[in-house]
Amino acid sequence: MTTHAFRTHTCAALNQDNVGDSVRLSGWIHRKRDHGGVLFVDLRDHYGITQIVADEDSPALPVLDALKLESVVTIDGDVKARAAEAVNPNLPTGAIEVFARDVTVQSKAEELPLPVAGEQDYPEDIRLKYRFVDLRRETMHANIMLRSQVISSLRRRMQDQGFTEFQTPILAASSPEGARDYIVPSRLHPGTFYALPQAPQMFKQLLMVAGFDRYFQIAPCFRDEDLRADRSPEFYQLDFEMSFVTQEDVFNAIEPVLAGVFEEFANGKTVTPAGTFPRIPYAETMLKYGTDKPDLRNPIVISDVSHHFEKSGFGIFEKIVGSGGVVRAIPAPNTHEKSRKFFDEMNDWSKREGFAGLGYVTRKGGEFGGPIAKNHGPENMAKLYEELGLGENDGLFFAAGKEKEAAKLAGAARTRTGEILELIEQGCFKFCWIVDFPMFEYDEDLKKVDFSHNPFSMPQGEMEALESQDPLEIKAWQYDIVCNGYELSSGAIRNHRPDIMYKAFELAGYTKEDVDRDFSGMIEAFKLGAPPHGGSAPGIDRIVMLLADEPNIREVIAFPLNQKAQDLMMGAPSAVSARQLRDVHIRTVEPPKAQG
Amino acid sequence: MTTHAFRTHTCAALNQDNVGDSVRLSGWIHRKRDHGGVLFVDLRDHYGITQIVADEDSPALPVLDALKLESVVTIDGDVKARAAEAVNPNLPTGAIEVFARDVTVQSKAEELPLPVAGEQDYPEDIRLKYRFVDLRRETMHANIMLRSQVISSLRRRMQDQGFTEFQTPILAASSPEGARDYIVPSRLHPGTFYALPQAPQMFKQLLMVAGFDRYFQIAPCFRDEDLRADRSPEFYQLDFEMSFVTQEDVFNAIEPVLAGVFEEFANGKTVTPAGTFPRIPYAETMLKYGTDKPDLRNPIVISDVSHHFEKSGFGIFEKIVGSGGVVRAIPAPNTHEKSRKFFDEMNDWSKREGFAGLGYVTRKGGEFGGPIAKNHGPENMAKLYEELGLGENDGLFFAAGKEKEAAKLAGAARTRTGEILELIEQGCFKFCWIVDFPMFEYDEDLKKVDFSHNPFSMPQGEMEALESQDPLEIKAWQYDIVCNGYELSSGAIRNHRPDIMYKAFELAGYTKEDVDRDFSGMIEAFKLGAPPHGGSAPGIDRIVMLLADEPNIREVIAFPLNQKAQDLMMGAPSAVSARQLRDVHIRTVEPPKAQG
Repeated sequence: MTTHAFRTHTCAALNQDNVGDSVRLSGWIHRKRDHGGVLFVDLRDHYGITQIVADEDSPALPVLDALKLESVVTIDGDVKARAAEAVNPNLPTGAIEVFARDVTVQSKAEELPLPVAGEQDYPEDIRLKYRFVDLRRETMHANIMLRSQVISSLRRRMQDQGFTEFQTPILAASSPEGARDYIVPSRLHPGTFYALPQAPQMFKQLLMVAGFDRYFQIAPCFRDEDLRADRSPEFYQLDFEMSFVTQEDVFNAIEPVLAGVFEEFANGKTVTPAGTFPRIPYAETMLKYGTDKPDLRNPIVISDVSHHFEKSGFGIFEKIVGSGGVVRAIPAPNTHEKSRKFFDEMNDWSKREGFAGLGYVTRKGGEFGGPIAKNHGPENMAKLYEELGLGENDGLFFAAGKEKEAAKLAGAARTRTGEILELIEQGCFKFCWIVDFPMFEYDEDLKKVDFSHNPFSMPQGEMEALESQDPLEIKAWQYDIVCNGYELSSGAIRNHRPDIMYKAFELAGYTKEDVDRDFSGMIEAFKLGAPPHGGSAPGIDRIVMLLADEPNIREVIAFPLNQKAQDLMMGAPSAVSARQLRDVHIRTVEPPKAQG
Repeated sequence: MTTHAFRTHTCAALNQDNVGDSVRLSGWIHRKRDHGGVLFVDLRDHYGITQIVADEDSPALPVLDALKLESVVTIDGDVKARAAEAVNPNLPTGAIEVFARDVTVQSKAEELPLPVAGEQDYPEDIRLKYRFVDLRRETMHANIMLRSQVISSLRRRMQDQGFTEFQTPILAASSPEGARDYIVPSRLHPGTFYALPQAPQMFKQLLMVAGFDRYFQIAPCFRDEDLRADRSPEFYQLDFEMSFVTQEDVFNAIEPVLAGVFEEFANGKTVTPAGTFPRIPYAETMLKYGTDKPDLRNPIVISDVSHHFEKSGFGIFEKIVGSGGVVRAIPAPNTHEKSRKFFDEMNDWSKREGFAGLGYVTRKGGEFGGPIAKNHGPENMAKLYEELGLGENDGLFFAAGKEKEAAKLAGAARTRTGEILELIEQGCFKFCWIVDFPMFEYDEDLKKVDFSHNPFSMPQGEMEALESQDPLEIKAWQYDIVCNGYELSSGAIRNHRPDIMYKAFELAGYTKEDVDRDFSGMIEAFKLGAPPHGGSAPGIDRIVMLLADEPNIREVIAFPLNQKAQDLMMGAPSAVSARQLRDVHIRTVEPPKAQG
């Protein structure tokens, strides 16, 4: 029998059945424990950990003893059953240990910049500089494996839904709208640049125009934006697009994929079943949740109570409502035991956040408290409570002002109230669609109608709506997927008709010439036979963050740039040679010095 | 029953079983034929083609009649069986046709820049400018679908072999060795640049150091090189790496993947079975095939016949052999019917290619012809023929000179002879490994020993070999995969040991300081516990080209750059705004004008 040069088994493979076997294992020295002349080594590889034992009779003892943690060794040894009291039922290999007959050193480790076993917190910059050590840690190793499994599952599920994956270009054209592009100087065409794609939007639409029916791609995207915890310059999205579909078809295609992958990796959490994702119109979510990214795990629902204050004794609210503003009510259920401080601190918080303030009513055993209740009167208050279905121990916050501002405050207060009162349902992923976004909005600054979200979405009602309805009443076939308060993606049924495109731009004040100049590529393609089509692009890093329960995107990327967009390990970005600059016809420019 | 807005079936779905059904189809008008008041339309979508019929009773007739080809329509109609003589057995829908009751125009096409049906040859620049029309053509559509299926199959097979896919960074560090990098100026760090990866080589090795065991990636790679038919600035490779493996393990892991994917898509061609890929040492392939990319479909095998000419009457060869040169023999089997012109033209060709010339012997019924046979004598020639196992009607070419030059000429002559004599076996994919590359070579210009291929491969015999053998005798654990004369990839067992690395560089004339300065990233990582590891990276575009039998890489990429590295459809590269340049701290420089 020839023995493999490095291993007969992985470090997760051996169990009671192997007792008596002569084996060879390779891996990293994860932990060492010296029990007076007997050395115990946890040998770790990608698959698991096996306990190695070397006693004074073993030539491996002095070698292992001298090696630092994280050195790589090959162990020849014999599998023995552990004593009953030493069995570790939590470890697949916990019933056995391997008595080392011999050891080969594959790689001696020097002093480590950060420990692997134990996973103490370490500054991110050290972790990223030594990412190849950091990735050995249990949590990071699990996160990166999870990411890979999630992506693999997404691919399989998309293919099951009849989608085909195509690659679109990474050396692409710069598109001045949107975020900042990363640009790449051309060597062959002096003075010109490629851009890395912010998303393959144009290409996927052109694939539909090219006659492919259901495209998807695990697509790398690039945005040169200032970084936050949930943002990376380089990120991936599940980019997809479908032809000959309605909004309903898009929902039916993607709900099983998202629900399926979340169920597969939810680790016991519940997931909104496919086919039952609530569809919440934009106007409704802005009212009930004060945001277009509602966290449905929070049971609190905001109501408009403006009409209660039209002729209220509470002058401030009466004035606000009288001048076209609104009053929104945010229930704080079962707060009868809460002191006045709880309510006052919510008000203080709202002011710190830049709002005008958060009014409130307390209630304990049916008894109202606080200035608003006093001014509005207990009878009116009782009527309001009855209308909202609130009980005799529920408090109530009020956000009043111009509609947009009041909605925003109400939404923030809803979130904070839910968190403080611990009302957010745990152990679940709650999905919803936000639908019926307005196509246009009134731009207060420019005093004109403009596109509200995406000019390239198809207006509901198509040409007829554009020609006959008040633009501000027209909705778009546009939709967001939201999970637990995070927007996973925006999507739309696209406007594939040049005539409808010109008309929509006309309503927003742009001429046919403007459209032809700025969007010639798409318009020209649409003039050569384009199918109705639509799609979306859920963020993959975001999905993995939710499933791994990690708040920072860099915890789910193997080799991320740091928050200053640097690769500390490989040293990017870096200076390049004069030759490299000359080759691509550019020169660097020192930024102006700050004034002294 | 609600009917779908666009289709009840795809254009490939209807058959005899649907006769009598009322259906809705959507697609492109592929062809139209007017049979005197009855219009036949081939309606095409991603899936197939269905024949639509509109007669004078149908309101669809004038609409369809007026539309240009490639317009997109939705047809409501009834499925009818075709008359027996009109049945098309080659079309899945060939037994039926759909009588149009009504038509909805989804998109009117204007005059087309190139036709779709029929696939006439068209200039590549027009095809690329209107790629969204070009991709509708049958061959391009099939190529892009094949590419997707090949990649999907590669993924599945790699996963079946226990590999996990990880993404490595695209915004990476510039590595001055190798080809030219595409560079990306940084906004946050003035004067510095990212580079797009030429390959994820460093990252995949660091993934092994990080403890992942079997990595793969369908990896986008970028090289700013001058373009050829088989090269694209942006290309994909099946990048993979494994820990705790020997060269044998790498072969065993990847042969089933490559043989499997080729068998799946070979379309009847035979494929070298996994586990039987010949392993040809570098020295042997250079002798027998005159190249390290041998096409094993060519049965001709080159031999060294130098010893026959040591004391030959043929003065030129005697002189060459006497001064350390070689004589290589390339059989031209069954050329007894060929005129002298065939042999003379081979000689002329070799001179046009820049070689000194190609000698030859003719033979017909055992009778030798030509000056070399005359000078060397028929008896000596018969001995040589017997040694090579040649027959009485086989001709023979001779390539003589310094070994490298003679091998190159012999290789080219072998290919040309095989092609002209039509000896290249058709209908097969023949794989082999080239192994045992020399670690070092003597650099004639610098008069010193230098690395011959890859300084980072592990030398066979490791430290002991470096310390005790003649460097020029040391082989590397390095291997190429070759199929039908195309190199699919280079690979190696890597040198993961800093001590062996320093020693290997020392033999090539580099100090420890040189190594630490130029390769600090890898060296530092290897000092913190690195497993033995190795891998390779077969080119995916190349694989698809072989399977699609396309000689041009742009035929297997959906949206390729043209041969001048331009995207003619989206207009990349292009000028960017002054603001964009300022943001990333660069200025463009006009290249110097050519002297007038």
